Amino acid sequence: MGYNKKSNAELLALKEELAAQYAAYKASGAKLDLSRGKPETGQLDISNELLTNMTGDGDYISTDGFDCRNYGILDGLPEMKRIFSDLLGIPAENIIIGGNSSLNLMYDSIARFMIYGVLDQTPWAKLDKIRFLCPSPGYDRHFAILESMGIEMIPITLNSDGPDMDTVERLVSSDESIKGIFCVPKYSNPTGITYSDATVTRLASMSTKAKDFVIMWDNAYALHDLYEEGDVLLDILSESARFGNEDRVLYFTSTSKITLPGAGISMLASGKRMIDKIKQLIGVQTIGYDKINQLRHVKFLKDADNVRQIMKMHAAILRPKFNFALKSLKEQLDGLGIAEWSYPRGGYFISLDTMDGCATLVWNLAKEAGVTLTNVGATFPYGKDPRDRNLRLAPTYPSCEELKLIMDILCCCIKLASVEKLLAKQR
Amino acid sequence: MGYNKKSNAELLALKEELAAQYAAYKASGAKLDLSRGKPETGQLDISNELLTNMTGDGDYISTDGFDCRNYGILDGLPEMKRIFSDLLGIPAENIIIGGNSSLNLMYDSIARFMIYGVLDQTPWAKLDKIRFLCPSPGYDRHFAILESMGIEMIPITLNSDGPDMDTVERLVSSDESIKGIFCVPKYSNPTGITYSDATVTRLASMSTKAKDFVIMWDNAYALHDLYEEGDVLLDILSESARFGNEDRVLYFTSTSKITLPGAGISMLASGKRMIDKIKQLIGVQTIGYDKINQLRHVKFLKDADNVRQIMKMHAAILRPKFNFALKSLKEQLDGLGIAEWSYPRGGYFISLDTMDGCATLVWNLAKEAGVTLTNVGATFPYGKDPRDRNLRLAPTYPSCEELKLIMDILCCCIKLASVEKLLAKQR
Repeated sequence: MGYNKKSNAELLALKEELAAQYAAYKASGAKLDLSRGKPETGQLDISNELLTNMTGDGDYISTDGFDCRNYGILDGLPEMKRIFSDLLGIPAENIIIGGNSSLNLMYDSIARFMIYGVLDQTPWAKLDKIRFLCPSPGYDRHFAILESMGIEMIPITLNSDGPDMDTVERLVSSDESIKGIFCVPKYSNPTGITYSDATVTRLASMSTKAKDFVIMWDNAYALHDLYEEGDVLLDILSESARFGNEDRVLYFTSTSKITLPGAGISMLASGKRMIDKIKQLIGVQTIGYDKINQLRHVKFLKDADNVRQIMKMHAAILRPKFNFALKSLKEQLDGLGIAEWSYPRGGYFISLDTMDGCATLVWNLAKEAGVTLTNVGATFPYGKDPRDRNLRLAPTYPSCEELKLIMDILCCCIKLASVEKLLAKQR
Repeated sequence: MGYNKKSNAELLALKEELAAQYAAYKASGAKLDLSRGKPETGQLDISNELLTNMTGDGDYISTDGFDCRNYGILDGLPEMKRIFSDLLGIPAENIIIGGNSSLNLMYDSIARFMIYGVLDQTPWAKLDKIRFLCPSPGYDRHFAILESMGIEMIPITLNSDGPDMDTVERLVSSDESIKGIFCVPKYSNPTGITYSDATVTRLASMSTKAKDFVIMWDNAYALHDLYEEGDVLLDILSESARFGNEDRVLYFTSTSKITLPGAGISMLASGKRMIDKIKQLIGVQTIGYDKINQLRHVKFLKDADNVRQIMKMHAAILRPKFNFALKSLKEQLDGLGIAEWSYPRGGYFISLDTMDGCATLVWNLAKEAGVTLTNVGATFPYGKDPRDRNLRLAPTYPSCEELKLIMDILCCCIKLASVEKLLAKQR
């Protein structure tokens, strides 16, 4: 029976029962964490060969004869570009290889637009007000970049097929101060949805009042399927090229969750004109990124097919955790009318919505019972969840045993918070 | 006899002789390069162990128990900070470890000042005009950063003890638009001079009209002595702390010319307030730099004493090249009154001044004879050498045999250009 159907007496009785359960969890002194969207140790072990696969015996020479130990080669080794190109269907000449962090490439891109402007347009820092569309819930680190630079964020509802495109089109076509949109188009952080073909086409083709409008396309989970059959994302670069808009797209990904989060390889792609401009400015910023690590990755990853095999090994570790967490939510919360959650087919998160106004209470209860959750609001611009209901669950890092206890405590907290909320309403 | 003492007839005879020599060089079809300030292959081999020194057998765990393969640790491993701290006498808590490029850290620092301002001051991008002092000749990549961001560069004469401090003090004390100075304080690129204690103290203590004045302290050659007895540079961080100015200093170095230029470790240090602010903003830019490469470096470099031993190995390779180049200049040009050059005791360059108005001619002659020199003007703001006389010679990369031919061709070109110049004057 849904909690909202329960009488005051029933709720009070339930509260007593849940409070006792909760007290027991609290007394057990657990110290658990469901906030960390990072690979577990077993996943890191998949790539241990990366640490040892250089022999030093001349294998620091790239296929075109360059000694990668020395200065030189700004935009990445051709063999590293080839792997990303084959995996993502992006021409190698549209690709720049970066350092160990695609977030860093994103930050640097926005910083460049602030200082130099987009292509030949006015630097954003010279304009009175600039704004960005932020499909929400979304990735807190995207929002942090925008907030740090004083770029006003406009939340856009993220539906199951992507951002609310009617609103997006209405805003970008009429407001010149809107300079971009930040997207995680596949297995979105945190809701796990993948943009539909129609959404991608509308983003690629829409006309924007601002000539310097950019689409920050963070395809962090491009290859991160949990199940045999993965979601398929339309390629925005070729799609936008059909409309002459390819320079508007800045496409990012990395091997952070393919090889090693702390020591992977990142990538940026765009249209030719934008890539040429970015290369010119990166040439002022650095002499080159770490080419030895690119060689290590080329040796380890080998080719696109082998990368897909590696991703199956990650999925084999992660799938049971997601399945368990989802089963646990279903068994404990289904039909109670107090929570809804996503069923992601890839990525690193489950997104859960409590009843309105309950998320902070759940977070606090969980904290006191020893379970750290991602901060409430982190998935919204300015850290403010307007309905105080979204929780981002990250089941990848804890062990399976830990996960069992975490889910039990979490579900107990959600129930308890919901009962308290409903009782407060009845008063 | 000095060329300027020669009669017209003598000069014409000399010109004929030199032109014949030059024609022979040109006909030999040499293809040589004296422009690349980078280590030779033998120097790279010193660090080949870096490519193979990870075993993957648990050695990815830092001394404080962190798995460096995963996300985390923003400002660098304590053990990596320790090595820089011991080498440079900078407290570890004032150090941030970066990626493979200190140039990138410098660029990012200037970009941060543009976007966020220095500490709590107005972002530079919001100001009408900002200017920087540029001791010249200097490093072209410093100038390129400033030029790319529209920061006006004011050349300052670089003397044998550092920048002309009377001019520096006069300008910074009276002009609020002057926001900083770019320095290579030890074995300066390209003249090889080291700032005197008095210069460092004046930079550390001077009062500046701009509250947001910064000293970009690129100590790239901190450890790069050629001879047993190296130059000693006063520590600007402790010196400026005596005057409460430590947050004004941004101190950079890297292992690019200690281990591998393409895959080394960079470092940024400053006062506590500045470091805290930078950490906060780097925390928006990235989740962390490559910690596995930091671990590799810690294993390879071991400690400060061992780094100093490694630097002796580099010096043993470089010293004969510098000695040969300097001997060659002395034997072929001394007393002719047509060139002056530096006698560096460290670093990567010899700076040579031709007679005024001759450098471009020498460059062109050398080019046609198959010797690439660093572009004339590269060592000055906006690529403009006001006296058209400075040539930056980089003797590290060519082999000793190549270097012999290069120096012969170069000296021939300098003589020929000088004779032509003197003949033109007599007309």
